[in-house]
Amino acid sequence: MAELVGNCLIGQSGGPTAVINASVAGVVAEALNHSSIEEIYGSLNGVLGLLNEDFVDLAAESQQAIRGLRCTPGAALGTCRTKLKKPQDFERVLAVFKAHNIRYYFHIGDADSQETAAKISETAKAQDYELRVIGIPKTIENDLPATDHCPGYGSAIKYIAATVKELSLDADSMGQGDLVTIMEVMGRNSGWLAAGASLAKRRDHPNDPPHLVYLPEVPFTNEKFVEDVRRVLKREKHCVVVAGEGLVDKDGNYVSVENNGTAESQLGGIGEYLKDLVEGQVGAKARVARLGVTQRSAAHLASKTDADEAFLVGQAAVKAAVNGESDKLVTLVRGDGDNYTCETGLSALSDVVGNLKKLPKEWVNEDGVSLNFQFFRYATPLIQGEVAVPYDNGLPSYVRLGKEGVDKTLPGYEG
Amino acid sequence: MAELVGNCLIGQSGGPTAVINASVAGVVAEALNHSSIEEIYGSLNGVLGLLNEDFVDLAAESQQAIRGLRCTPGAALGTCRTKLKKPQDFERVLAVFKAHNIRYYFHIGDADSQETAAKISETAKAQDYELRVIGIPKTIENDLPATDHCPGYGSAIKYIAATVKELSLDADSMGQGDLVTIMEVMGRNSGWLAAGASLAKRRDHPNDPPHLVYLPEVPFTNEKFVEDVRRVLKREKHCVVVAGEGLVDKDGNYVSVENNGTAESQLGGIGEYLKDLVEGQVGAKARVARLGVTQRSAAHLASKTDADEAFLVGQAAVKAAVNGESDKLVTLVRGDGDNYTCETGLSALSDVVGNLKKLPKEWVNEDGVSLNFQFFRYATPLIQGEVAVPYDNGLPSYVRLGKEGVDKTLPGYEG
Repeated sequence: MAELVGNCLIGQSGGPTAVINASVAGVVAEALNHSSIEEIYGSLNGVLGLLNEDFVDLAAESQQAIRGLRCTPGAALGTCRTKLKKPQDFERVLAVFKAHNIRYYFHIGDADSQETAAKISETAKAQDYELRVIGIPKTIENDLPATDHCPGYGSAIKYIAATVKELSLDADSMGQGDLVTIMEVMGRNSGWLAAGASLAKRRDHPNDPPHLVYLPEVPFTNEKFVEDVRRVLKREKHCVVVAGEGLVDKDGNYVSVENNGTAESQLGGIGEYLKDLVEGQVGAKARVARLGVTQRSAAHLASKTDADEAFLVGQAAVKAAVNGESDKLVTLVRGDGDNYTCETGLSALSDVVGNLKKLPKEWVNEDGVSLNFQFFRYATPLIQGEVAVPYDNGLPSYVRLGKEGVDKTLPGYEG
Repeated sequence: MAELVGNCLIGQSGGPTAVINASVAGVVAEALNHSSIEEIYGSLNGVLGLLNEDFVDLAAESQQAIRGLRCTPGAALGTCRTKLKKPQDFERVLAVFKAHNIRYYFHIGDADSQETAAKISETAKAQDYELRVIGIPKTIENDLPATDHCPGYGSAIKYIAATVKELSLDADSMGQGDLVTIMEVMGRNSGWLAAGASLAKRRDHPNDPPHLVYLPEVPFTNEKFVEDVRRVLKREKHCVVVAGEGLVDKDGNYVSVENNGTAESQLGGIGEYLKDLVEGQVGAKARVARLGVTQRSAAHLASKTDADEAFLVGQAAVKAAVNGESDKLVTLVRGDGDNYTCETGLSALSDVVGNLKKLPKEWVNEDGVSLNFQFFRYATPLIQGEVAVPYDNGLPSYVRLGKEGVDKTLPGYEG
């Protein structure tokens, strides 16, 4: 294989995670090891930076800043939800790549956004422009196929489980019967995040909170919910409920949809919906916590395993590209042994696109509101270890990149 | 002063805080130093334990457990919201005290609940029963008078400010204009907690998030809110709003009140209320996080200053009682110097009861939505330092007391 010499570019896409920047740090750290990679650019705000030729020079950042990325939440390069669709968008991106001699493109994103990476590569091939494109997995939703789990997920469920544990201790101490604590967690299409709350249970304490976990995989009915809560309140002096925002009824319709006043509807509000059921039909007192975006940004409680793996997939992406790979997604491959081990692998980007991994139904107990040992065996290793976040003046100290732009060489793009 | 020999009892009251158990640990640690204190009991579920003679033997707990209390959230002894009112309730409490030779009673609670402590003492005096009663301050709401600040507050605002910082990095990276992030925080009657979110601003960065902080002290109008948000969205690419749940209009009526289906109304829902305003009147996208009870239970991010002071007030309560003091609240007294120092003092319980400390209006800027240097000078020292919470299997490891009951000697109480 001929050596491909040129510049590399990193883009972040979609919702951030607590460890999305650790993958950027992994790419930068590894890229510096390879003489075939000259400049290391970051695209500002994902595909918007690709279109608008808005790059930042990551090699110019201090080593301290790159190290700080390993524990900084939010997308340090900026991200967006824009999807490239029109052929002229991809033509434009390729013109920008050519103008800056981008030969390596690393796309940090979820299943949906890896389609963009695949199409950029396709466009380059059609124009005989040598470009290597590698996808780097990222999503708290854990729904990317081909990989054992996704960077971002471990930290999200560590935070969710710790919060459930703390909320439950609070509720348990209140000494009044019939108190229902409801925690609404993200998860539009799958119960990966809600299931993660179960990790708050101590070993051999199946009756520990969370007492009831509602997953989008299990059709929801008001009647069963009311029964479930009544049953727990009979057994325990309080009840902790965790509900994924994307609960559906037996016909597959969302139980609760909020309209955000703009075109698209926005999930959420299931916590309030359940609160009304508890108060109206169970006759108990309910209180709701809605963690919202904290689930993907609470870097102060990130999983070290997760942060390290996010760094690792960044490194692996560079190694693969330098070795001649392209159109691949870096995956995490779990070892077979009893002790958790994990290494990286590669999967075709085309296998990932338009494909979502569901929480296996056989991991849910027959009661529909708890998880069995298969889930615990899967998820427990992912939350191990704590990241040593630096503190300054009492608060976590996070890194902001300098965002010194790279000179533009092309006219602006109107789309 | 004659030495008073007998047993001591500790009770926790009202909503827990992240450091309420550190005060129990302080009482136990100090009580062991004094030969005049024989048994060390805890009352289970606050005044309910006093009435029902439900005590736990704290001296029988392992030293490890008592140390673990210094970072365990929830009320380890249990708490309740019941208030003793009837004279026969107080007669009963005194009978229980006599039966167990309780000579020292330590009451960990907010302004409201210290009334109970004062009345127990009164009842004892009326019956010539020698009893020393000391109140120990506790509330995330920071509204106890006489003390510079309240144990529990520093940890709550450290968590709130860290969360705002993380949410803001997430929002800042989204790259789309007109995104409004709303965080609803507790604070029924005062803005102490909402104001604490301001600590997320970096020094010399007044335009950092949170951009708008709404306090119950400043009458709320929809018109000004919409204007405020529009102004920020013109200047910044997104807007972070922090709102206290107890916002009131110019007539003093709550802007948003949820009815919980039972007799009492429950505050909350201001986040959703503001979201509707943003989407309906500003025409921007909004998302809400409602931290709920996490604000008082997130011990994994407790302030070390706060936890240490909570322990200190527990110790000081015992010292004061052994020295012959009674009917006093332990207070925190801030030193005059430039560097933060804090020691304990004593204030009459009667000064505290029915008296709430408001956030000084002169600490709020003229814009009504930001705090000036006086607040920063006051609050910054309270969030310093991190508690080294032990982790087990990826999650904070908290202590649960054995709750081996103390033998009852009196017939049950029907009230």
